[in-house]
Amino acid sequence: MKKSNYIEKLKKILGTEKVKDSTSWRLSYAYDGTPTGYKGVPDVVVFPEDEEDVAKVLAFANENRIPVYPRGAGSGLTGGSAPLEGGIVVSTEKMNRIIEIDEDNLAVLTEPGVVTYELQKEVEKRGLFYPPDPSSYKYSTIGGNIAENAGGPRCVKYGVTKDYVMQLEVVFADGTISKVGSKAVKSVAGYNLKDLIVGSEGTLAFITKAYLKLIPSPEAVRTAMAVFPKVEQAAQAVADMFKNKVIPTACEFLDKNSIVAVENYAKIGLPTYAEGLLVIEVDGYEAVVDELINRVIKVCKEAGAEEIKRASTPEEREAIWLARRAVSPAIVQLKPKKINEDVVVPRNKIPEMIKNVYKIADKYNLMVVNFGHAGDGNIHVNFMYEPEEEERVEMAVREVFELTLSLEGSISGEHGIGWMKKEFLPLEVGEALEKMKAIKKALDPNNILNPGKIFDL
Amino acid sequence: MKKSNYIEKLKKILGTEKVKDSTSWRLSYAYDGTPTGYKGVPDVVVFPEDEEDVAKVLAFANENRIPVYPRGAGSGLTGGSAPLEGGIVVSTEKMNRIIEIDEDNLAVLTEPGVVTYELQKEVEKRGLFYPPDPSSYKYSTIGGNIAENAGGPRCVKYGVTKDYVMQLEVVFADGTISKVGSKAVKSVAGYNLKDLIVGSEGTLAFITKAYLKLIPSPEAVRTAMAVFPKVEQAAQAVADMFKNKVIPTACEFLDKNSIVAVENYAKIGLPTYAEGLLVIEVDGYEAVVDELINRVIKVCKEAGAEEIKRASTPEEREAIWLARRAVSPAIVQLKPKKINEDVVVPRNKIPEMIKNVYKIADKYNLMVVNFGHAGDGNIHVNFMYEPEEEERVEMAVREVFELTLSLEGSISGEHGIGWMKKEFLPLEVGEALEKMKAIKKALDPNNILNPGKIFDL
Repeated sequence: MKKSNYIEKLKKILGTEKVKDSTSWRLSYAYDGTPTGYKGVPDVVVFPEDEEDVAKVLAFANENRIPVYPRGAGSGLTGGSAPLEGGIVVSTEKMNRIIEIDEDNLAVLTEPGVVTYELQKEVEKRGLFYPPDPSSYKYSTIGGNIAENAGGPRCVKYGVTKDYVMQLEVVFADGTISKVGSKAVKSVAGYNLKDLIVGSEGTLAFITKAYLKLIPSPEAVRTAMAVFPKVEQAAQAVADMFKNKVIPTACEFLDKNSIVAVENYAKIGLPTYAEGLLVIEVDGYEAVVDELINRVIKVCKEAGAEEIKRASTPEEREAIWLARRAVSPAIVQLKPKKINEDVVVPRNKIPEMIKNVYKIADKYNLMVVNFGHAGDGNIHVNFMYEPEEEERVEMAVREVFELTLSLEGSISGEHGIGWMKKEFLPLEVGEALEKMKAIKKALDPNNILNPGKIFDL
Repeated sequence: MKKSNYIEKLKKILGTEKVKDSTSWRLSYAYDGTPTGYKGVPDVVVFPEDEEDVAKVLAFANENRIPVYPRGAGSGLTGGSAPLEGGIVVSTEKMNRIIEIDEDNLAVLTEPGVVTYELQKEVEKRGLFYPPDPSSYKYSTIGGNIAENAGGPRCVKYGVTKDYVMQLEVVFADGTISKVGSKAVKSVAGYNLKDLIVGSEGTLAFITKAYLKLIPSPEAVRTAMAVFPKVEQAAQAVADMFKNKVIPTACEFLDKNSIVAVENYAKIGLPTYAEGLLVIEVDGYEAVVDELINRVIKVCKEAGAEEIKRASTPEEREAIWLARRAVSPAIVQLKPKKINEDVVVPRNKIPEMIKNVYKIADKYNLMVVNFGHAGDGNIHVNFMYEPEEEERVEMAVREVFELTLSLEGSISGEHGIGWMKKEFLPLEVGEALEKMKAIKKALDPNNILNPGKIFDL
């Protein structure tokens, strides 16, 4: 079908006010948070208001073989929502209601376009807690978080988005509206389509509602910072926390280059000789948090920390977190371009990872900054570079991925594959890639849902 | 291929000592824990020793269209391992090594034939904890637990088997050996095949190794029992525990008929007028468990408990648990036959569930006993009956499933679908069933892996 014809048809199906095809709308929805800029411009952007609207769009697109690009806030970092081949961007912006907070069953039913932070604030009013906290949580949406299986600092203790999704209402490529998962806490009735769809980056189904698990808010929190001369010491401290039965709520790591960058940027008195800095937070019952943070401080000392700060006031807590939060604004000062990989390795492989990343950076004469979630071995490796260094950066990134996999890690802990990392996916998943493709073909035989993402068919 | 020919071929492929085809072997592996007895007898039973053996068997079976029935301990309750159509039973009995306990990364790499309890004992020696605890844990295997996504009393706090599976080595129907999931704590690299395979009852892949997450053992535990005149009061107490920020490690429920049956059987002084009994356990840090059990006792009192016992010694703890553990031996005294359904409903629907189950039992003039995991809404509904009542039981079971679904629950929390519940699965999953079938066909196009389970193609 010709482009102009199909857009007219869409307007008839949905009503003109939900269909935008002017150049300004199309360009505005060509971008996401991926630093490479846009890869393609959609033919049209649509704004469904419920699952029936979504089903109409998908059934129409499926019949006419038109690509469909699901989109939340467009804050993804690997191009997950990028409209690579024209087609229809389907935005969840108008599906942004929190439908019900169920205090008896500790759950919330929501539409996908709700911003994660807004949902968290709403449930916190009732003493409840939705833990997943990707860095983008103040603007990214629940639907996008589910599509990418977003993580965040707190997932070392609380798990990732997947762990909070109980049931989804989805629309499959053929327009079928289905529920997957269960409102019951446990269910083993048939295949686990729910966990297959979570993290599938909009390639298997369009999420129209989510029933999410909540937990009681923790009563208290304690925060500390520890600075280590050697990166191995920081890693030892992390391992020892677990051995002392403390699972920290957050255990964030800055490497030497991050520390230097933050200190130059924010002048907060960090010791620039140090190879590792940890920001550690524990939470739980009032009766126990002091003991837990004391255990953390003890293991940090024993592992060789030279400076330890413990927050006694909310202001001191903020000051400690500033060291971590300043990393991103600090490092973008260093060079005009940045590529941020979010590799993950088993926790005890962090020192080997960091040392070898430095070697790779030396080999290609590049600036590298490593920081991230030490508690779950998730290190954000950032190469900072001039535009003319791009080719060397690409070679270095490939080596970082090979290094990660040699350490039995994963090439993406939180950001997904999108189009940006798809050439590297086979390195990690091997022959299982063919099984993934078989599933894609089974659920979306015309390849209309977010084509060109994760892998090419 | 003729049966005798293919068995000779198998002996050549694997070696004769791993292939058993005498009548006694075949009959011994025709059964599992399902109370209906056997449904079919395998042609042959094989005992692979590693993933290469499994791959050889599957590739051969796939080429020759011979059904393959994966089998752990054969303790399943819905016929998951039953060889319905002859074929090859593939036992994991000789794949029973714990390969490595990784204390730094809190994980264990194991073969599938290890008995869950044996694995738990081994990791506990190092202060580590593998929480999933299906009732069968002293004889069921890790592989079977993963295939069924087994639960247990502790999953209200700690989650189900799925939540502890980080990576699997599997063999697909075509003999491809693959790893799915990651040894890293987080991974979003490609589709989540791991969580699709967990709980797929051996129909999508054969599990040959599992890398399982462990957590630090809890420092302390406290146990209490509360008896309620009305079932609503017990449900209120459960809801109020969560509202008071206590997620119990276990929160087990006995209904009136269970209490009477246990009292008649064990004479432990239970008040037989009561409609509900809760066994509640909390665990965690020494500094906090007393406070937690006090909160539990307080909410039980406020909800109307007439008797509350708190264990002060290990012996008293055992005495409390006896009430729960005696249910199964007690109720089999009541009638010669029993059917045990493990439906799940949202926690706050338990009273409505129990009351309507009694109505259904009255309607069909049947004896019913309800007990189970109140913390996650998982109620084991047991009809106890004479052989001649079977037809009425079947009608009652269907009504129980319809009731469960009307309360937004699931027809199986832990036991799976197997062949026993497959006629009821469409009631729960609706049109998503076609998507499940499409996935099955994509991964096992010749339908050799555990055919006739979960659904018919």
